[in-house]
Amino acid sequence: MTKSNLDLVKACDVFPYPPSPAYSAQTSHLVHLRVATDRNTTLGYLLPSIASTFASLPAWELDLDSEPRTLTLLSGSDEPTRSAAMALTTSAMRETGHFAILNNAWRDELYPVYGPDGNELLRVERAASQLFGVVTYGVHMTAYKRDEDGALRVWVPRRAKTKQTFPGWLDNSVAGGLAAGEQPMAALVRECMEEASLSADVASKAKAVGAVTYFYVSGEGSGGEEGLLQPECQLVYDLDLTGMDVELKPNDEEVEGFQLMGMEEVWPALKGGSFKPNCALVLLDFLIRHGEITAESEPNFLEVVARLHRRLEFPLARFPTSSHA
Amino acid sequence: MTKSNLDLVKACDVFPYPPSPAYSAQTSHLVHLRVATDRNTTLGYLLPSIASTFASLPAWELDLDSEPRTLTLLSGSDEPTRSAAMALTTSAMRETGHFAILNNAWRDELYPVYGPDGNELLRVERAASQLFGVVTYGVHMTAYKRDEDGALRVWVPRRAKTKQTFPGWLDNSVAGGLAAGEQPMAALVRECMEEASLSADVASKAKAVGAVTYFYVSGEGSGGEEGLLQPECQLVYDLDLTGMDVELKPNDEEVEGFQLMGMEEVWPALKGGSFKPNCALVLLDFLIRHGEITAESEPNFLEVVARLHRRLEFPLARFPTSSHA
Repeated sequence: MTKSNLDLVKACDVFPYPPSPAYSAQTSHLVHLRVATDRNTTLGYLLPSIASTFASLPAWELDLDSEPRTLTLLSGSDEPTRSAAMALTTSAMRETGHFAILNNAWRDELYPVYGPDGNELLRVERAASQLFGVVTYGVHMTAYKRDEDGALRVWVPRRAKTKQTFPGWLDNSVAGGLAAGEQPMAALVRECMEEASLSADVASKAKAVGAVTYFYVSGEGSGGEEGLLQPECQLVYDLDLTGMDVELKPNDEEVEGFQLMGMEEVWPALKGGSFKPNCALVLLDFLIRHGEITAESEPNFLEVVARLHRRLEFPLARFPTSSHA
Repeated sequence: MTKSNLDLVKACDVFPYPPSPAYSAQTSHLVHLRVATDRNTTLGYLLPSIASTFASLPAWELDLDSEPRTLTLLSGSDEPTRSAAMALTTSAMRETGHFAILNNAWRDELYPVYGPDGNELLRVERAASQLFGVVTYGVHMTAYKRDEDGALRVWVPRRAKTKQTFPGWLDNSVAGGLAAGEQPMAALVRECMEEASLSADVASKAKAVGAVTYFYVSGEGSGGEEGLLQPECQLVYDLDLTGMDVELKPNDEEVEGFQLMGMEEVWPALKGGSFKPNCALVLLDFLIRHGEITAESEPNFLEVVARLHRRLEFPLARFPTSSHA
């Protein structure tokens, strides 16, 4: 089945928009994650079944009668003490084997959760971040070249069949999560080497070109529970390799191989749904910025552009002022 | 006073976001524009005082007791008949002299208003579109060049002191409204000649790079009533003049003159508030796409990116299927 560009956007930006009855119903049904020192700020949404499971541990307070419903982290008064309480929670849950994702996808890597001032409130194991429905951050780069006739070609990797999430799907040229304390450009340069064998010299030519943001709800292929709330921010980069003798090659077991795809190959892969859902969005943003998708060619141009840049209702990261940089 | 990038965004994207008490208060206080053949779709928001004035004419039905409050165009069953009823309304109001903007800024140019399927529901005189609070569309282009050392310079016009709106303010290199029946790229090429003396040959090298969308509420400098609701979509274009011997020059009385500004001139002009508010947003989007504003340099990067691409709550244009193309 051929997917339209708007279908691709809707498959990733799944959570309803306010003000709609669907949005109100979801946000009053879901449990709002908060911390005791700021009981007015929601940091993420949890499924009620997941919130109840966490509430069995003493660091937490669950209130299903309030409006909205809340799960509040009582322990801790600053980032290190909240993070310690969170670590006890996630490792205890991993022991119980209750959540498949904690047993299958544990990374020993911490993701930051930010407060209203853009500073870190706490850190949480990457695999657990989805259970809490907090905003996660990543860097996604598109490496491309223009042929002499102006035609665009894009470097596209296929994810290894052994990957926990979306095995065998197509991906962005280089992409990775931003762990706590990481600066975006530094993380990108590291991922360029780890995933695509690109030297720091080449990788540092990548140009920051914006961000793609959306509110995913996990489904098939995500490797864990379905229905998890996943608001995500991807900082996006372009690497123009026109006229350079550079190839992307796998450097670890995450990537099966790279292809330099012309648009005649990119379009069928996109429309056939071969790209990992959020990577399809980053690629759509790239194609819009490079004039391949225009108001004249795309009936839902304005809707697609807006939904690639969703304003999320949670506090977001401030990278320049990171105290852990 | 120095404005932050987020200040600039907030000065143009003024209308509150859902779900907030401010948004609910505004949308229940304002009057929702509808047509009789689709009483469930809101096409724009009017101030109650303005809606009451229009309701004195027979083509209209005002209901201030419904939730939401509505002003419904009763006359007409298709685009031409609705547009004819609208033309009678706006010219009658112009006669009365009731609205300054109809007397000062009448253009004899029709703007399209779209329905849920992206087809035109009706057309309205450009000067009156602000009174009805409907979405308007434009094309904004940034012409730039990179010096040999990679430094960016941007062509910036100053608006003529005789302009009705924002006289003497700085503008985007080329910008104009999209009248009913116009295709975006064709309109841009025409504006390039009219405003900047750029030949069709050069103008057609402009690259479509996305859209900037926001919800303005008119204030000082707008040349008409204050507090008018103005949701706007600007299709954005880049024209790379690097290595080309091309200069932008005024061709009519709209522009006082052009300057090729380096970033050392662009930043003080932006932060000093010298750019027309919506042109500042188009320039911010340009600077983000060209790596001059990054997650590392801008504390509110993710908020700025999202708000430059606001998802508007009204039906939007479909350009490819325009029956008037």
